[in-house]
Amino acid sequence: METKQQISSSSDVTTIKPLCCIVKLGGAAITCKNEIEKINEENLGTVSSQLRHAMISSPPPLKSFGMDWSKRPGTSEISVEFEDPALPDYSNFLVVHGAGSFGHFQASRSAVHKGGLHLPLVKAGFVATRISVTTLNIEIVRSLAREGIPSVGISPFACGWSTCERHMAHADISQVVKAINSGFVPVLHGDAVIDESQGCTILSGDVIIRHLAELLKPEYVVFLTDVLGVYDRPPTDPNAILLQEIAVDEDGSWSIIKPTLEGMNKEVEITVAAHDTTGGMVTKISEAAMIAKLGIDVYIVKAATEHSLRALKGEVRGHVPDDWLGTVIRSSK
Amino acid sequence: METKQQISSSSDVTTIKPLCCIVKLGGAAITCKNEIEKINEENLGTVSSQLRHAMISSPPPLKSFGMDWSKRPGTSEISVEFEDPALPDYSNFLVVHGAGSFGHFQASRSAVHKGGLHLPLVKAGFVATRISVTTLNIEIVRSLAREGIPSVGISPFACGWSTCERHMAHADISQVVKAINSGFVPVLHGDAVIDESQGCTILSGDVIIRHLAELLKPEYVVFLTDVLGVYDRPPTDPNAILLQEIAVDEDGSWSIIKPTLEGMNKEVEITVAAHDTTGGMVTKISEAAMIAKLGIDVYIVKAATEHSLRALKGEVRGHVPDDWLGTVIRSSK
Repeated sequence: METKQQISSSSDVTTIKPLCCIVKLGGAAITCKNEIEKINEENLGTVSSQLRHAMISSPPPLKSFGMDWSKRPGTSEISVEFEDPALPDYSNFLVVHGAGSFGHFQASRSAVHKGGLHLPLVKAGFVATRISVTTLNIEIVRSLAREGIPSVGISPFACGWSTCERHMAHADISQVVKAINSGFVPVLHGDAVIDESQGCTILSGDVIIRHLAELLKPEYVVFLTDVLGVYDRPPTDPNAILLQEIAVDEDGSWSIIKPTLEGMNKEVEITVAAHDTTGGMVTKISEAAMIAKLGIDVYIVKAATEHSLRALKGEVRGHVPDDWLGTVIRSSK
Repeated sequence: METKQQISSSSDVTTIKPLCCIVKLGGAAITCKNEIEKINEENLGTVSSQLRHAMISSPPPLKSFGMDWSKRPGTSEISVEFEDPALPDYSNFLVVHGAGSFGHFQASRSAVHKGGLHLPLVKAGFVATRISVTTLNIEIVRSLAREGIPSVGISPFACGWSTCERHMAHADISQVVKAINSGFVPVLHGDAVIDESQGCTILSGDVIIRHLAELLKPEYVVFLTDVLGVYDRPPTDPNAILLQEIAVDEDGSWSIIKPTLEGMNKEVEITVAAHDTTGGMVTKISEAAMIAKLGIDVYIVKAATEHSLRALKGEVRGHVPDDWLGTVIRSSK
């Protein structure tokens, strides 16, 4: 695993406005898993609305003003109902989303993550993957903009993020910082990027989040997923138990704080990882653990629920209420 | 006007592969002028096909392989007919497009070019403009990808381009160079960007082209427009004469080399500028003149015609054939 010191970053992060929260919109939560390139409009709409409520500290204005002035299908004109209200006070948020049913087909069909840009299939797959994930990015930016969130899409490929041997090599956050300082909400995404050793690879949203958390030090991080949180075994297992609080030691090992069940020890945790065949939750937990080690609490919670709204608002920070369903991962210190 | 020395650029441009051509896809040529957010599909398809023919120096393979593996409207599956052909030899091209009927409404409604991000209307307009122009960018990338051109969208905002007092202040081309060196065709576009003095502004595709030409030294530059070239008066005037060759002196003044008509002198040229009420052609000519001063020939030609294909292929370089309709702007040296 690379260390922070090896990663070049040309930005002056000391000048950033305090960042409240980095939010991961999990691909599975905002797209329809089993249908290629289909957005879960209902979930995305609810998530966007919850983000708006979480970001605005002052009472929100009665009427939101949309920032997506695109032509709607079936219409030929744009109508901008704009009453020039005062801009509300926003907490600074940053959004990163996964690919879900966008990009996944294209990337796996061509094995972009394995590199080899000299191969026609890989080069075509790289182009096709970027088309798909940037299409999703615009739709998410539009959804947030319709809620009046001043969102701006920033592709990791375009702003020069690259890897070496599939580990982060260059993570330039200068434009992310500039956007936040100008009052925007940057929206990044998992992307196909250039890899200095193997030509190209896929940079996942979870890895991007960890680097942004290290560099920008948000108050907390929220992962919105399609399950309630982290379980001790696959959530499809009827005996699966939701792990509500996990503590991460400095050496990276975890212990389950809540619930306190007999026999739930480190050996169980290793079994958690072994259960996971998709790799999705394992990557998420290990990236989340690295964020928690920095002293930044991570909340893994089901998107578009009352629990996600509370997590986004920071209401479950400090003490986790008994009626909150989700997983918090924090430093044991 | 800013000088090149004042613009910061963190890229190592000495390592770039030779760049053959920078192509401007004029907004008026690839969108429907009078219909908001509507692409001129026929023109865009022809332009993409012409670009493919211009880029491939070896005889093109009988079957092109598309790189846009997106779901088509009305279908639920993606079919990738991929025969794994050898990648043909491409000349390095770089594409920049304008906004046309995308972005223009949003930007002018909110006067993004005048700055003032603290004003709700300007902030909303900035977000709405970026949504519109990045939507067009993806459609152009998709059109090129369908022709087998390994295109990648790069937004000037996302890669950190910014202005100060509406002049270019930071033009980081490092990612553009990396993309070219990896065998991709970067596709940039006119964009809303951060301005260090007034908050924000609009960076036009023509200004972007000039900076890219200065930094990347292409062999030639082609502007694809919706008229045959530069005229001595508005092309709607029946007496308008197509200026086929314009020479630019080191002091920036122009002279018309061809056609050689009596009374066509510098005073006439000033009249050319005075005629132009949209500012479009004036900006284009003055940016083109600055490129020509660097010793790089600029061809202004009507998109999707036999003349544009010849210009893109570099066939009219050196001596301009009599049957070629367009305008070449070159250095008088």
